[in-house]
Amino acid sequence: MKTERLIYLPLGGAGEIGMNCYVYGYGPADRERLIVVDLGVTFPDMDTTPGVDLIMADIAWLEARVDRIEAIFITHAHEDHIGALGHLWPKLRAPVYARRFTATIGRLKFEEHGHPRDAIKTVGARPETVEAGPFRVQFVPVSHSVPESSALVIDTPAGRIVHSGDFKLDPAPIVGEPWDPDAFAAIAAERPVKALMCDSTNVFSLHPGRSESTLGGPLRELIGNARGMVVATTFASNVARLKTLAEAARASDRSICLLGRAMRRMVSAALESGVLTDFPPTISPEQAQEIPRGNLMLLVTGSQGERRAAAAQLSRGKYLGMEVKEGDLFLFSSKTIPGNEREVGKIMNALSEKGVRLQDDAGGLYHVSGHANRPDLVTVHTTLKPKILIPMHGEHRHLREHAEIGAASGIVSGIVTNGTMVDLTGDAIKLAEHIEAGRTYLDGSVLIGAYDGVVRDRIRMALNGHVMVTLLMDEADEPLGDAWVEVMGLPKRGRSGAELAEQLEAELADFLDRSGAKIMRDDDKLEEGLRRAVRQVAVEEIGKKPEVTVVISRLQDE
Amino acid sequence: MKTERLIYLPLGGAGEIGMNCYVYGYGPADRERLIVVDLGVTFPDMDTTPGVDLIMADIAWLEARVDRIEAIFITHAHEDHIGALGHLWPKLRAPVYARRFTATIGRLKFEEHGHPRDAIKTVGARPETVEAGPFRVQFVPVSHSVPESSALVIDTPAGRIVHSGDFKLDPAPIVGEPWDPDAFAAIAAERPVKALMCDSTNVFSLHPGRSESTLGGPLRELIGNARGMVVATTFASNVARLKTLAEAARASDRSICLLGRAMRRMVSAALESGVLTDFPPTISPEQAQEIPRGNLMLLVTGSQGERRAAAAQLSRGKYLGMEVKEGDLFLFSSKTIPGNEREVGKIMNALSEKGVRLQDDAGGLYHVSGHANRPDLVTVHTTLKPKILIPMHGEHRHLREHAEIGAASGIVSGIVTNGTMVDLTGDAIKLAEHIEAGRTYLDGSVLIGAYDGVVRDRIRMALNGHVMVTLLMDEADEPLGDAWVEVMGLPKRGRSGAELAEQLEAELADFLDRSGAKIMRDDDKLEEGLRRAVRQVAVEEIGKKPEVTVVISRLQDE
Repeated sequence: MKTERLIYLPLGGAGEIGMNCYVYGYGPADRERLIVVDLGVTFPDMDTTPGVDLIMADIAWLEARVDRIEAIFITHAHEDHIGALGHLWPKLRAPVYARRFTATIGRLKFEEHGHPRDAIKTVGARPETVEAGPFRVQFVPVSHSVPESSALVIDTPAGRIVHSGDFKLDPAPIVGEPWDPDAFAAIAAERPVKALMCDSTNVFSLHPGRSESTLGGPLRELIGNARGMVVATTFASNVARLKTLAEAARASDRSICLLGRAMRRMVSAALESGVLTDFPPTISPEQAQEIPRGNLMLLVTGSQGERRAAAAQLSRGKYLGMEVKEGDLFLFSSKTIPGNEREVGKIMNALSEKGVRLQDDAGGLYHVSGHANRPDLVTVHTTLKPKILIPMHGEHRHLREHAEIGAASGIVSGIVTNGTMVDLTGDAIKLAEHIEAGRTYLDGSVLIGAYDGVVRDRIRMALNGHVMVTLLMDEADEPLGDAWVEVMGLPKRGRSGAELAEQLEAELADFLDRSGAKIMRDDDKLEEGLRRAVRQVAVEEIGKKPEVTVVISRLQDE
Repeated sequence: MKTERLIYLPLGGAGEIGMNCYVYGYGPADRERLIVVDLGVTFPDMDTTPGVDLIMADIAWLEARVDRIEAIFITHAHEDHIGALGHLWPKLRAPVYARRFTATIGRLKFEEHGHPRDAIKTVGARPETVEAGPFRVQFVPVSHSVPESSALVIDTPAGRIVHSGDFKLDPAPIVGEPWDPDAFAAIAAERPVKALMCDSTNVFSLHPGRSESTLGGPLRELIGNARGMVVATTFASNVARLKTLAEAARASDRSICLLGRAMRRMVSAALESGVLTDFPPTISPEQAQEIPRGNLMLLVTGSQGERRAAAAQLSRGKYLGMEVKEGDLFLFSSKTIPGNEREVGKIMNALSEKGVRLQDDAGGLYHVSGHANRPDLVTVHTTLKPKILIPMHGEHRHLREHAEIGAASGIVSGIVTNGTMVDLTGDAIKLAEHIEAGRTYLDGSVLIGAYDGVVRDRIRMALNGHVMVTLLMDEADEPLGDAWVEVMGLPKRGRSGAELAEQLEAELADFLDRSGAKIMRDDDKLEEGLRRAVRQVAVEEIGKKPEVTVVISRLQDE
């Protein structure tokens, strides 16, 4: 009887774009040997995660099985794939495999966290193979918007899996390897593909994707026609774009100055790892100030409106001595990720107030996506001919659309979301188990669970304000003076025109007068009564139910 | 000597899309008679205005000159033009003029607020004229996405002004009047246009706008091909769209059920005011439950992802007995306003999880904008031939782009943002004065100023958490017991593994031990010391600097 099984369990990235973390296992049920693919982050927002610094997958399931983890594979150096590595690696301590550029970025993170650099192993492209328990894993170069992105070929005793990573079909990506249809055909020819786990980001884009190399001409023209200083922003990790922008700048006699930590870091990692060989020389902000504005281009971080990045700083005023002025050109060689529109808009308007000419992606003239569009996905399906298709890297609607496309081509296609473990041993996608797949927040320096209530309390204070009541009780369980009210985040005066805090204190005094010894002796009842009184007055006065914290101090030693 | 002057002062809407409020004045400087055009709202968000209900222009400047206000004119019934009328009218108490549909909506608001219905006067279209002090004002029908939208012709002794309101050039808007080029040409022929204040929303849309009537065919086909229930959402005030959707439903034998208060309210206001004459009969949610799903279409509120609207409720589960199911079609006949992407995405994903087929605007097939695109704006400039162009209804970058277009045609064009008063008596745009133009928040039932600090404190609590310290001091100015710490919105445990509250209390005890009588007697110093100690421990333990409230209770009566 065959008892081994092949399992797939996404912990992040399947039902969202971000926070990628996928687990594969092979072996007897509940004793499978495991590999982890990617450990990414997603970014917080005020609506759901105020004050949080980073969001990553909850890896409690992996932690409980840490002795079964053979290895961690990182497909590429985007934060949604590698961003949690430094934070979570100590909980897993398995060897990490990545290609050179990705490994370089990973080691920078490890240094910051004080983890051993040599826990990250550099792997060459296929046919180089990593043996990890029952898995044999190869990195297949794909084109994407960061150097050395890879798909993984994962061979198991139950069959071959292709994990696409993030990719596009770019025949001329400027930096890094082009999409190689023959290499992918060879993968399927060598051994039939049992399952394809596939990027779904652009499944709603109906036209074939466009090559990075189409941008050079328009960018040269745009920058060539500019008179003042040119400032361009894009993702720092898009090294190909940086190169294209820099070359366009050079073509019109502009010196290049990199602004923003990530920008300098990525360029030097790209040079160090050898993926970038002929980047024009750059100058420092100090040197830049000596150069006529018409001979200068700044490459800056902050294309998504990040408040502390260089683009936002420049929109507000001077940054490292540099300043944008009327007649300058500010180019967003980027697409605004849904949810970031307001912040990006703020920067654009602030620049507009300074008289700066704005240029966005102009519908594709100055930016192309790094992900495969719908026809490109179909090409990959057709090339790899997988028995099973499991879409990943998408919100639920992306996964569903992608699965429908697969099913329409006769591929067994299914939606497998975070926390769903499926058994792929047979020819179908068989539900194995549901795992509690939550999120972990980096909050300041502490990792907390998404359901710990910490963030919920913050949201409540932000929506409702906070009233603090202090009450002193003497040895005879009588109030010593009146209850004291402090108010934070609420209007000073309400409907009656009197001060809210005073109105509240008056009502609390009434409540204490009315209440008998039974309530006075009981902290819970007293607290509940005080809270209710506060909320009632607040609703009457200001139409809001605030959060209430009651502190009762009793003088006697009970 | 001529001392009269003509002034223009936007208080909202010039530098943002929303919260429209424009003031015109004519007379001797600082004694001008005034009219107000529109009193709109904009909507809060968690990033900048958590817990706030509505945002409107700060009309303190008008309040201080209330005896000089002749009238309020409302161009159309969108909330960003009429939404603040009920809230702010008591501060102005001037007569309100609007066309019939707008007046109907305005009176509904007045009823809710208990204001006199007859303060709102219904005005017919031009040539009907309202005399308001030195102003003679006419409502000129324009096509837009709500019935009876109007531009205003404002005649003053210093010349004729055209205030465009929101508009598009639609020759066949389904409901309401089409764009009438002859009527606009006649306005300019009758008396030269001194100044045009013009909608800038779609200045970045390069193609001519499309007519509402182009949607009928695609919608009939889409809805005709649907098998299960069809749910469609759009702005309730887009009565033409509701009609097109309803007619498409009738064409495929579907009964129509309106879900959401605004949806029912708008349809009945449109019928009552006579702008809608042949809307198909609708059924109640109770009746809808008796009808086969294939014979049903729901028209629902919530196209922008509003959490309490019908679309969001349906995405979460049953709403008024109705429920979406696998095989149903959910149509967003709308465009997501920048900033609402996350909330709309949540609804789409929740519907996708239920197996519902999603259809968005498909790049214009099922939705058209209600605003004039760039070539349409040029058409209006050319038709009206204004001496002066002042763009409005736009963020700064929209105003700038629009002003550049005007300038390129030789029109005197300028950017006039909220709080900037300009003198238009001559042939130029002359800066007259800068006004403090803030925002007023409706917070619960109270109007508060944007700079009152209330919202700032809420944001701080949301980002940093809140620590409350309570300390009892005895008659001899010695601490009675230890300081007490309550924590809200912070991790329970930090770096050391111990409870944060206990760590904080231990440090506060140390601080109190160390501190001499000079500090103990001084509430300010004591509070500052306690606050600093809390922050220091918090940074060490959890890497955050919380908000701190200190309550010191002294037992003696001083």
